[in-house]
Amino acid sequence: MANADIGLIGLAVMGQNLVLNMADHGYRVAVFNRTTSRVDEFLDGPAQGQSVIGCHSMEDLVASLSRPRKVMLMVKAGAVVDEFIEALVPLLEPGDVIIDGGNSHYPDSTRRTRELREHGLHFVGTGISGGEEGARHGPSIMPGGDPEAWPLVREIFQAIAAKVDGEPCCRWIGPDGAGHFVKMVHNGIEYGDMQLISEAYALMDRALDMDHDAMAEVFAHWNQGVLDSYLIDITADILAARDADGTPLVTRILDTAGQKGTGKWTGISALELGVPLTLIGEAVFARALSSLKDERVHAASVLGLPHRPASAQPADHLDALHDALYASKIISYAQGFMLMREAARDHGWELNYGDVALMWRGGCIIRSTFLNDIKAAYDTDPQLANLVLDDFFARALQQAEAGWRRAVMLAVEHAIPTPAFASALAYFDGYRSERLPANLLQAQRDYFGAHMYERIDRPRGTFFHTNWTGRGGSVASSTYEV
Amino acid sequence: MANADIGLIGLAVMGQNLVLNMADHGYRVAVFNRTTSRVDEFLDGPAQGQSVIGCHSMEDLVASLSRPRKVMLMVKAGAVVDEFIEALVPLLEPGDVIIDGGNSHYPDSTRRTRELREHGLHFVGTGISGGEEGARHGPSIMPGGDPEAWPLVREIFQAIAAKVDGEPCCRWIGPDGAGHFVKMVHNGIEYGDMQLISEAYALMDRALDMDHDAMAEVFAHWNQGVLDSYLIDITADILAARDADGTPLVTRILDTAGQKGTGKWTGISALELGVPLTLIGEAVFARALSSLKDERVHAASVLGLPHRPASAQPADHLDALHDALYASKIISYAQGFMLMREAARDHGWELNYGDVALMWRGGCIIRSTFLNDIKAAYDTDPQLANLVLDDFFARALQQAEAGWRRAVMLAVEHAIPTPAFASALAYFDGYRSERLPANLLQAQRDYFGAHMYERIDRPRGTFFHTNWTGRGGSVASSTYEV
Repeated sequence: MANADIGLIGLAVMGQNLVLNMADHGYRVAVFNRTTSRVDEFLDGPAQGQSVIGCHSMEDLVASLSRPRKVMLMVKAGAVVDEFIEALVPLLEPGDVIIDGGNSHYPDSTRRTRELREHGLHFVGTGISGGEEGARHGPSIMPGGDPEAWPLVREIFQAIAAKVDGEPCCRWIGPDGAGHFVKMVHNGIEYGDMQLISEAYALMDRALDMDHDAMAEVFAHWNQGVLDSYLIDITADILAARDADGTPLVTRILDTAGQKGTGKWTGISALELGVPLTLIGEAVFARALSSLKDERVHAASVLGLPHRPASAQPADHLDALHDALYASKIISYAQGFMLMREAARDHGWELNYGDVALMWRGGCIIRSTFLNDIKAAYDTDPQLANLVLDDFFARALQQAEAGWRRAVMLAVEHAIPTPAFASALAYFDGYRSERLPANLLQAQRDYFGAHMYERIDRPRGTFFHTNWTGRGGSVASSTYEV
Repeated sequence: MANADIGLIGLAVMGQNLVLNMADHGYRVAVFNRTTSRVDEFLDGPAQGQSVIGCHSMEDLVASLSRPRKVMLMVKAGAVVDEFIEALVPLLEPGDVIIDGGNSHYPDSTRRTRELREHGLHFVGTGISGGEEGARHGPSIMPGGDPEAWPLVREIFQAIAAKVDGEPCCRWIGPDGAGHFVKMVHNGIEYGDMQLISEAYALMDRALDMDHDAMAEVFAHWNQGVLDSYLIDITADILAARDADGTPLVTRILDTAGQKGTGKWTGISALELGVPLTLIGEAVFARALSSLKDERVHAASVLGLPHRPASAQPADHLDALHDALYASKIISYAQGFMLMREAARDHGWELNYGDVALMWRGGCIIRSTFLNDIKAAYDTDPQLANLVLDDFFARALQQAEAGWRRAVMLAVEHAIPTPAFASALAYFDGYRSERLPANLLQAQRDYFGAHMYERIDRPRGTFFHTNWTGRGGSVASSTYEV
């Protein structure tokens, strides 16, 4: 009986949970897994009694689907996705849909959209955020690819997605790899948020000499205000958790952070597009530095620690840390949205930035009330050049500014690395600088490489070269327009 | 008569100057250019009376070379290089050499080395630094590719290279794309050096309110000490130069910096290899930010400037700026050499880091006495894990540290962006931190994604997962080894 609403291939935890989520919402789901014993285990286990049809071959899976068929892949990103697509193509008919829900790199999704279109098939590359829990009970879903597929998958995607104020955290992102691009930026922002929280923690721990319970209380308190978010919430939990002997558990955890690659992709994309994504860049590099544990331990013995001032009073500085965290977070999102805007321009996508903020409000790791303010900013001005120019955020930054500077100075004085706080502040000071010292840099490039420069008193696009040989005196006579 | 020592294709300025440099050293050079009128112009002009043979076809060029033939391409990086190689291959014989002296991306040089080896030909991909002047009178030359080619090109390359203390700034770098990789890192370091100088300039100009003549004097003075380098030298010249009306010329130059891509490649390579190359990353992003001139002008009007303290006294702060510049420069080179070390490990190259420092001492934009200290550090310990661990540099950093902190605080107080100074300091404080807050980050990843963590009290490679649900109390019972 060809009456299943959708087929899903790949029954690892994420795949299983998405199937159960779909079944909860009344969809009939046909499932297949390369190791077919897992199909049976799933049917006999978590899927028992659910509207789930087990299949032992791709042919069976396809045969059990109503038309137009929708087949979703939840398999390892990379070559495995292509292998399954290759196997599916001869089994499908024009008008059918293949969905890739893995963490694929967006250029692959662009390529797949185009390749499948030649077979008359519609491809969807969708980011899915929220981990296992999200997949089971409502993830954030960021679909892109062939726009003709959207009406065919919309109902089921929006049904299983997280809801905030009744709105599903799933809207159509755009063509080609746009969905996976936005998911990649989401992950980069997640790197930034985590790094910022870690810097606040380091300052509390080492400059303010607070104990872990006190820190947990501060984060719980912060979670009641503008910083209200999933990551702040779990940080309070984590800091309060104890090991068997009563020691704060987090102090027993090795300080080497892993990474899976999407943060790195985000940084690479920013470099390629020429977007100053400094905060996420620093966050990715901070993880790389943390992983050099043995080198750091050795360096500590060689270089020693600087003379540190006495611990500062928490009461005098916690507001400054709060403001540094909040302001830096605004900068990080401003940079992330800038990257999306530039990618959209580069690829000819029309992204709806308010929709993106809306989708991230629920289901995913970076969910926060903060995203409501971003949504509001883009509702007011869909073409907003930079979040920091929005009234609400401009005011928020101005209010946070003094504390933010104090927090960075505290870190510098106490020799505690806060690369993300500091980098965000430098970006803020740079972005609102009518004048930066790049004039000197252009002079240097003209001096050694005759790269030429523009002048502030002449129209853009007119180039000048100076023969900078004179030491001192006027060289204007050898400056000429090119 | 097949008696030319080398052939060169591509008579733009760099190519012409290399030919003249070779001729100066007694080599007979056959030249060809796709637009052949340029060959005639060159022969009738700059090359008149020199040992240069003009050719109007690739066949003529090849026929005029003694065996084994050496043909050097000085053409636009990218597809054009491949087109010329394709045209040359049928004209050459096993044992002949093709040299690419352009700014090619190193993976292309790796590919070309391997492709040409299948034809029995030896490929050399070489970085050449120093611009037009260097090409004419002695550049820094960084050759890599097929090691069998080195004995065939060594004499001519070392003859035309810059000399420092009688040593040619040219040694064999390594196989495949190693030469172009090292040239890429050189260019990234150049981005960093220029950004650091610009930050010192911005602080002098805006926090210390110095006039340009005074700044020129400071840079000229700095050029007598540990900062002695080509870029500091030309900065003194630039700051002293006047426009026709007597105004410092540099103040008339538009503050938007261009880039050609090698800085970006360096950053991308660092992200791919997981090396925390923060300073060059910030330098590349600073150029990107500078190019958003219209946005910055608008942002300045929306966000305004913070309340700035009164200008500080130069006498109180110039030493701090000097120390910040010097210490940050050490960090930048330490990161660059770290990137080369990691690339060498990844590609299986054996790089001689002392040789690299030696090659950069002359001919190129980043030439400086500082590179002697780097050479000395690697002479002492060729396997040095990080430059900052070398005695000389460790001491230099410790001595500079207090001033460096004061300079960053001055910038933070005065709202002057110094992303490279600040990022270098954060790296230094992080690199010598036995303990970083990445333990919290690992706890977060384990909380939301069950990514697991290692413990400081258990052997590396043993992984733990905690069920972090408890708010407060002990959760140790749900922590388990995986």
